[in-house]
Amino acid sequence: MAGDSNIISDFIIPTNVTTVDGNLFIFTGMRVLVDAGPPITFKVKKASMAEFPSLNGQSVSYVVLQYLANSTNPPHTHPRSAELLFLLGGSLEVGFVNTTNKLFTQTLQAGDLFVFPKGLVHYQFNGDAKKFAIAVSAFGSANAGTVSIPGAVFNTSINDGILAKSFKTDVATIQKIKAGLLPKMNNFGSVL
Amino acid sequence: MAGDSNIISDFIIPTNVTTVDGNLFIFTGMRVLVDAGPPITFKVKKASMAEFPSLNGQSVSYVVLQYLANSTNPPHTHPRSAELLFLLGGSLEVGFVNTTNKLFTQTLQAGDLFVFPKGLVHYQFNGDAKKFAIAVSAFGSANAGTVSIPGAVFNTSINDGILAKSFKTDVATIQKIKAGLLPKMNNFGSVL
Amino acid sequence: MAGDSNIISDFIIPTNVTTVDGNLFIFTGMRVLVDAGPPITFKVKKASMAEFPSLNGQSVSYVVLQYLANSTNPPHTHPRSAELLFLLGGSLEVGFVNTTNKLFTQTLQAGDLFVFPKGLVHYQFNGDAKKFAIAVSAFGSANAGTVSIPGAVFNTSINDGILAKSFKTDVATIQKIKAGLLPKMNNFGSVL
Amino acid sequence: MAGDSNIISDFIIPTNVTTVDGNLFIFTGMRVLVDAGPPITFKVKKASMAEFPSLNGQSVSYVVLQYLANSTNPPHTHPRSAELLFLLGGSLEVGFVNTTNKLFTQTLQAGDLFVFPKGLVHYQFNGDAKKFAIAVSAFGSANAGTVSIPGAVFNTSINDGILAKSFKTDVATIQKIKAGLLPKMNNFGSVL
Amino acid sequence: MAGDSNIISDFIIPTNVTTVDGNLFIFTGMRVLVDAGPPITFKVKKASMAEFPSLNGQSVSYVVLQYLANSTNPPHTHPRSAELLFLLGGSLEVGFVNTTNKLFTQTLQAGDLFVFPKGLVHYQFNGDAKKFAIAVSAFGSANAGTVSIPGAVFNTSINDGILAKSFKTDVATIQKIKAGLLPKMNNFGSVL
Amino acid sequence: MAGDSNIISDFIIPTNVTTVDGNLFIFTGMRVLVDAGPPITFKVKKASMAEFPSLNGQSVSYVVLQYLANSTNPPHTHPRSAELLFLLGGSLEVGFVNTTNKLFTQTLQAGDLFVFPKGLVHYQFNGDAKKFAIAVSAFGSANAGTVSIPGAVFNTSINDGILAKSFKTDVATIQKIKAGLLPKMNNFGSVL
Repeated sequence: MAGDSNIISDFIIPTNVTTVDGNLFIFTGMRVLVDAGPPITFKVKKASMAEFPSLNGQSVSYVVLQYLANSTNPPHTHPRSAELLFLLGGSLEVGFVNTTNKLFTQTLQAGDLFVFPKGLVHYQFNGDAKKFAIAVSAFGSANAGTVSIPGAVFNTSINDGILAKSFKTDVATIQKIKAGLLPKMNNFGSVL
Repeated sequence: MAGDSNIISDFIIPTNVTTVDGNLFIFTGMRVLVDAGPPITFKVKKASMAEFPSLNGQSVSYVVLQYLANSTNPPHTHPRSAELLFLLGGSLEVGFVNTTNKLFTQTLQAGDLFVFPKGLVHYQFNGDAKKFAIAVSAFGSANAGTVSIPGAVFNTSINDGILAKSFKTDVATIQKIKAGLLPKMNNFGSVL
Repeated sequence: MAGDSNIISDFIIPTNVTTVDGNLFIFTGMRVLVDAGPPITFKVKKASMAEFPSLNGQSVSYVVLQYLANSTNPPHTHPRSAELLFLLGGSLEVGFVNTTNKLFTQTLQAGDLFVFPKGLVHYQFNGDAKKFAIAVSAFGSANAGTVSIPGAVFNTSINDGILAKSFKTDVATIQKIKAGLLPKMNNFGSVL
Repeated sequence: MAGDSNIISDFIIPTNVTTVDGNLFIFTGMRVLVDAGPPITFKVKKASMAEFPSLNGQSVSYVVLQYLANSTNPPHTHPRSAELLFLLGGSLEVGFVNTTNKLFTQTLQAGDLFVFPKGLVHYQFNGDAKKFAIAVSAFGSANAGTVSIPGAVFNTSINDGILAKSFKTDVATIQKIKAGLLPKMNNFGSVL
Repeated sequence: MAGDSNIISDFIIPTNVTTVDGNLFIFTGMRVLVDAGPPITFKVKKASMAEFPSLNGQSVSYVVLQYLANSTNPPHTHPRSAELLFLLGGSLEVGFVNTTNKLFTQTLQAGDLFVFPKGLVHYQFNGDAKKFAIAVSAFGSANAGTVSIPGAVFNTSINDGILAKSFKTDVATIQKIKAGLLPKMNNFGSVL
Repeated sequence: MAGDSNIISDFIIPTNVTTVDGNLFIFTGMRVLVDAGPPITFKVKKASMAEFPSLNGQSVSYVVLQYLANSTNPPHTHPRSAELLFLLGGSLEVGFVNTTNKLFTQTLQAGDLFVFPKGLVHYQFNGDAKKFAIAVSAFGSANAGTVSIPGAVFNTSINDGILAKSFKTDVATIQKIKAGLLPKMNNFGSVL
C-alpha cells in the first residue's frame, strides 16, 4: 500500500518477481501500435502501474491515444496527476475548465504539447473530417486514474431524479442520455 | 507560490498583515449560520484559504452545507483533497463513483460521517420532503477546489457537437440541458 | 506501513474487508452524541484511522469535543497535523504558543473557527460557569496523534530529578504534580 | 513561502545574495566550538535555515549540544522533524514518550546514536557528576523548530487557573513553577 | 520559490503573464521536429519548466531525443525524477546502474518503453550502423535536471590530482580525457 | 514498501521485532570509532535504514567519514537527499558541480559545515600530507543511497565502446581506467 511519494530504495520489485534484471524495466505493450496502420476506432493504450508494475514508486506513466477522424475523448479528469499531451500526428482541439468554470481551449498541430492541469475536467476532439490523430500523454504519477464524466455520472446507477435535479432538467432527458450511453459503453471501456 | 506541502515555519503570515496575534487565527464568517433559523436555499459557506488566509500551509479547511428539503448538491469533484462529511442534522443520501465507474451510496442520519475519497465524483441529496439537513465537511487541504460537473461541462462554452458526441446524444439534448442550467447558474455560484 | 502521502489508488481497502461497498465509507460512531443531552464529563470522541479505517490514505479526520462548564482540555500537541476547531455551541477560550514561546489567544463564540498550527502546544478552556460547550475539530491527517503535556511529562516514569531540573523546581513539587495527576489519569484516557 | 518539499532547482539562492560560489554552501559558525575547552554552561548551537540560509530546500540541519555535568535538556518537541543524536563524548541518559504515554529510555555512551521520532516529547540528561557530554544532532528538515515544554507551558502568559486545572494541581504550585523558571529563562534562550 | 509539491491552485501563472487563456498551456517548440527530415546530429529538445513555464506545479515534463546512427547519450543522472523513455523509431541499447553498481540493460525496438529509476546513472546507445533513432521521454517533475557524468566530472575544473586518485589512474590519463572532451563540449550543451 | 513520506504512526516497528522498548532506538555501531586511534584506511561507516532499521519513516540518517592524509572520497551522488557534512577534525577540500556544470569548492577547517545539494555530483579530498581528517554527514532521508561515479560508470560491464564514445576518448583509455579500478574495488566497497 505505497503512494506516489518519494521511495527509499532504487526501485520497488513487484511481488512474485524473482529475477531482477533489465527485463523488469521494459514494457513492450505498445509495440503493436507501430506499423499497425491507421486506427479503426478511438483507442487508448496505457502504460501505467497496472500494465507495467515497475513504474511503482517512479511517479511517471504514459498513454497513447488514437483518434479517428471526427471523434472525441469525452470530458474526464485524472484524480492523481496533470496530463502533458504531445500530438505526434494529425490535429486536435483540446480544452479544460478551471475551478471557476472558465474554459481554456487550443487547436494543436503535430508536434505541439498541451498541459491539462491537475484534477480539472478536460477533453480532446479530432475535428478533421478525414485524418486520424495520434498523441502520447505523460503523467506525473504511476497511476493517474481516470474519471470519465459520461461514465461516472450517466453510466452508473445514480438515481434519475437526483441527476435531473442536478442538471436542472427532467427525468426523461436524463433517461435519454443514459440510454444513449448504455449500449455503447463497451467502447468506453478503455477510455482514458 | 506555496503548496499544500510541509511548511518550514510555525505558520505563514498573510501578505499585508502587520499585527501578528490571536486575531490572525480566528474565522468568524460562520457566526451568521448560528441561530439564523432554517435555511431558505441550498447554501454552501466555505472557510478555505481564500476566506481564511491563515490556513495557508496548514493543510485543512471546512465547508458548511445547508440542504433544503428535497434538494441536491450536484455531482462534483475536489481536485486537491478527500472530503469528510459530518451530518449535524437531518438525513442525507450520499454517493461517489470510483475510477471503474462503480457507485458507492449510503443514507446518513444525524451524527454520521462519510468519506468521499480524493478526486472522485460525488453528490449529496436530501430526500426528505420537509426537513432541511445541515452538514460540515472537512478537507485535508487549505484549498481543496471544486469542479462542478454541471457547471464545468454544461455551463461553459464547450462546443455542443463535442458534448453531443461525448455523451452519445444529439445536439438538441445538449442544448436543452445547457438552457436549463444557464439562467439558474447564479444559484450554483457558491456550490461546493 | 504507508504514510499520509498521496495514494495511487482510489482508496485503500482495510485488511480483512471482503465486501467493498458504501458501508466501507460511513462511520456511525458519533450518532450517540446526537440527542444525548448535555455532556456530564469532558469528553473526546475521535473519528481517525483507528476508529474509521477507510480514512487511511485520505489525509483527513475528525474529533468531537464536549466541555463541561469551567473545564479545560490541557496543553497538548498533534505531531502530524494542524487542527481546525469549529465551535458549534457555547463559548471557549483557546490558545497556542509558537516556537518562540509567544502565546496567541482568542475567546470564541458559537460559529467561530480557530486554527492551531501544526505541532504547536495549544489548549482550550470553557470558562463559562454554567454552560457546556461543544466543538468539532478537523485534521489534515488520518492520524494526527496527540501528545498530552501533563500525560507525557508528568504521568510517565520520567525521573523526578530530571523533571525538577527541567522545570527549575524541587523534587517535591514534581512529585506533588505527579500525585495529583496519577489517580485521575483515567479521565485523560481519551483526551484529544 | 516554500516548504520542506522537493525543490525544482539545484538549490535556492538566499535573497540579497549576488555572488553564487562555494562560499554560499559553507557554515563556519561552529568553529568556535573547536578547541574552546570544556563548556561552562549548557549550550546549544544551531545550523538551521536561520543561521545557514543555503539549507533552504535541502531538508537537513544540525545542532551541537554541550551538557555540563549533571545537567538536563528539558522535555521538548520538534514540530517538523525527527532528531538523530550522535553522542561524541561523555555519557547521556535519553528518553522520549510516545502518543500512548509510554516512556522509552536509554543510557548512551560515546559513539552511540539515538533517534527521537517525529513530534514526540523527549529529553536528555547528563547524569555524570563530573564530566561534560557533547553531542551533534541531525534533523530531516532545514527548520525543525523546537517547542520547549517548560517554556511553552510555564513561561508564557497562559492563565494560572487553566494550568492548575490542566495539571490537576493548585494555582500556588503553578505560580511556584512559573516563578522558578522566570528569572532563569535567559538560560533557555537558545535551548534546542 | 515553489517546489514539485502539491499546489493549492488550479495552476501557477508565470510571472509577467497578463492574459490567462488557452495560449498559456500550449508549447509549440517541438513543431520544428515534425517533417524536419532525419537528424544530422545527436539532438535533445526539452519541454521542461524553463521552456514551458506553465509546467510549474504540474510535476510533469518531456524531452525528445534524436540519435544518429552509432551515437550515444553519455552516462548521466536526473536528480529530481525517474525517466520513462518511449522509443518512437529505430532501435536503442539502454542501461542503468543501481546503487550496488549492478548494470541493467535492454535493447529496445520501436514502440518499447523503458524506465530509468530515480537518480540512477543511465545511458542510451544507438548501435545501428545506418538508421537514426528517435525517442520521447517523460519525467515526473517539471524540472528533472540533468547531471552529465562526462560534463560534471571531466569538463569542470576539478583538480586533476583529485580525479586521478578518484579513478585510480594517473594524471596524464585524466588530462587526456579532459582534453578529448573540452573542444567538443559545445555538442554537449543541450545533452539531456 | 513505504517511502520517505510523512508517516501516520509514531514510528514504524521493524519486521520481526517483538520487544518495543528503548533498545529499538539506539544504534551502537559507531562505538568502535571512539578511541580507536587514527584510521589506517579511508573508511565510511553508515547509520542508515539498513544498519539501523528504526530510522524507517524518520527521514534522517548519518555517516562517519575518515580520510587518511592525502586521500579522496571520489565523485558520487546521493539520489535521495542532500548531504550536510560537519568536519570534526583535520581539514578537507570539498566540491560539487551543479546541473550547468559549474564547480563550487571550499577548503574546510575543523568545525566547518558544508552542504552538498540534492542529487549533485560531489567529492571530498584531504590534501594534508600528514594528518587524517574526520567528518560526520547527515542526510534528510533514512536511505539517501550512493552512486559512486567510478563504480557506476567504470566498474560495471558497460560496453567499452559506449564509454569511449561517451567520454570522447579511445577504448584503450577506457580499458586502462577500468583495469586500474578493478583490483582495487574492494576498497570502494563501503565508499559513501
